[in-house]
Amino acid sequence: MKILNDTISSITGLDEEAMKRARERLDNLLKPPGSLGKLESIVIKISGMTGEIQNSFSRKTIIAMCADNGVVEEKVSSFPKEVSFLVADCMVKGLAGVAVLSRHAGADLKTVDIGLDTDAKPGGIIQRKVRKGTSNILKGPAMTGDEAVKAIETGIEIACETIEEGSEILGTGEVGIGNTTTSSAILHALTGEPLDSLVGRGAGLNDEGLANKKNVIKKAIEVNTPNPADPIDVLAKVGGFDIAGLVGVYLAAASKKIPVVVDGFISGTAAVLAAKIKPETKEYMLASHSSAEPGSVAIKDILQLDPMLNMDMRLGEGTGCALAFHIIDAASEVMKKMGTFADIGM
Amino acid sequence: MKILNDTISSITGLDEEAMKRARERLDNLLKPPGSLGKLESIVIKISGMTGEIQNSFSRKTIIAMCADNGVVEEKVSSFPKEVSFLVADCMVKGLAGVAVLSRHAGADLKTVDIGLDTDAKPGGIIQRKVRKGTSNILKGPAMTGDEAVKAIETGIEIACETIEEGSEILGTGEVGIGNTTTSSAILHALTGEPLDSLVGRGAGLNDEGLANKKNVIKKAIEVNTPNPADPIDVLAKVGGFDIAGLVGVYLAAASKKIPVVVDGFISGTAAVLAAKIKPETKEYMLASHSSAEPGSVAIKDILQLDPMLNMDMRLGEGTGCALAFHIIDAASEVMKKMGTFADIGM
Repeated sequence: MKILNDTISSITGLDEEAMKRARERLDNLLKPPGSLGKLESIVIKISGMTGEIQNSFSRKTIIAMCADNGVVEEKVSSFPKEVSFLVADCMVKGLAGVAVLSRHAGADLKTVDIGLDTDAKPGGIIQRKVRKGTSNILKGPAMTGDEAVKAIETGIEIACETIEEGSEILGTGEVGIGNTTTSSAILHALTGEPLDSLVGRGAGLNDEGLANKKNVIKKAIEVNTPNPADPIDVLAKVGGFDIAGLVGVYLAAASKKIPVVVDGFISGTAAVLAAKIKPETKEYMLASHSSAEPGSVAIKDILQLDPMLNMDMRLGEGTGCALAFHIIDAASEVMKKMGTFADIGM
Repeated sequence: MKILNDTISSITGLDEEAMKRARERLDNLLKPPGSLGKLESIVIKISGMTGEIQNSFSRKTIIAMCADNGVVEEKVSSFPKEVSFLVADCMVKGLAGVAVLSRHAGADLKTVDIGLDTDAKPGGIIQRKVRKGTSNILKGPAMTGDEAVKAIETGIEIACETIEEGSEILGTGEVGIGNTTTSSAILHALTGEPLDSLVGRGAGLNDEGLANKKNVIKKAIEVNTPNPADPIDVLAKVGGFDIAGLVGVYLAAASKKIPVVVDGFISGTAAVLAAKIKPETKEYMLASHSSAEPGSVAIKDILQLDPMLNMDMRLGEGTGCALAFHIIDAASEVMKKMGTFADIGM
């Protein structure tokens, strides 16, 4: 609990003075004020994080938290549990979507086993298992409160190591069959919004599967009665180790004052939890893309983030972060290399 | 007229068989079918253009058409006419937004004087002036029919040269104070939609300026009575040389079966004209971003294109195309480098 508490207490808001200086420079660049839209707001926000008006990200890392979910035995996914490990293994082999896209973006990819239900330990997967998968939330809590804290602290430790190794921006990824179910359950517990606007087809459920998924979430909330005012209680009762690890990544990035990119629905749910734990955390987040999952609308509203990309993607893994890195780099280039009105004697 | 007619008659639709093969490969990649959204639809569409299921774009060029508009004397812009040349000059000096962003995307930038109202000929600006700016559309047609054809053919020639030099994908950019006015006038003439949904603040008009801009467009249509069924008549009467040149770029890309990226509002208006001249042209277009100009909604509807980026940008120049190139490259990488289910023995 000490790591978590220390991290939370070290998080402060953005540097308003640096943001003002960034805005002034942007307004001197050769363009109508504000005409580069989000390229400008990204630059300003990052200046507020780092305190510098020029920033670059020569080292970037996507941290992909991989874990299994006990609720998969309730047939909430169109894929069997074993696929979680297969995908994690494909990440370290360079074959998975996020592996290809992070390489293309010049980013490192850290694949973390924070709770896969396997004894396999292939090279490249970072072994930080809290437990071999969560319990079935239809029958009781996914994990204990201590396990939730341990998983969050694992995320904090991995993110802090990554930052110490030189990464100047982080992306969030995940693998875990069943994790759109746990994400929808978390959002439903926190917001009370109707399941119809929070539950989607995940990797490809049919109508019957979707109805079952909603029913499972409804019952899991009744069985576990998570406290909406206590994000760690909600996470422990109906969440997953992957989501918990990402909560830690967000908190660590905010405490170290570097940007962290939100990927899609699951990563966004973790971002919501981090923001509920410490509201200033969301000031360090940049949203990559609008996920095709319906619950991402609620996430956008809570985080007040407006994604850069509109790609209809729903693969997860951190794929949206890899694409967003190109745009964030482009924003930094604009700030460094565009001419000013003074440059041309105006 | 021969270049234009030959180009139009050489444009055919996409290769359905290649698109089918591309879709099959995408469905064998390690992901739920369709879960990479537009990355997949981009790959499929490009396969339909080239006939190949693997495509890469080692050479990319943004063609920026620069021209002045006589209507600027009606105070439809917050910037004076002289700024058109200044921006074009900043492009070749590497200081303009699109210069920075195209360099970052590994793309070439061709800056073309197709109608700037200047005698200056700085190195780097390609000299293909049709005339030193159009006439004021409040007093008569912007250009003659012959000039419109000549400007379109200039765009065709420059695009064909660029493709012959090795570019495998084109982006569309423009510079021209007053060209949101001509674009809105073209869309209003073609669609009859109300001016309120087609006219925006351009580079930053205030309320009074916006009202004047709408009034000028309304009168220009009354004065010139463009024929909505004849896109070249509409272009000649209320358009501009920059837009005409881009119409040529779209037609050339489609005739050479390579992708062409639509930038924002002005470039989108040229895309609409090209699609009205030859409907198959739009099958070769990829939309980069949703411009902040209100008329871009009408453009999206006509072209049936769904942009990748949602950046609130309104600078023009081709800046959206430069960002989109990163995403299109990422889509090609996915197709080339992601593993298949067969790769992992499934």
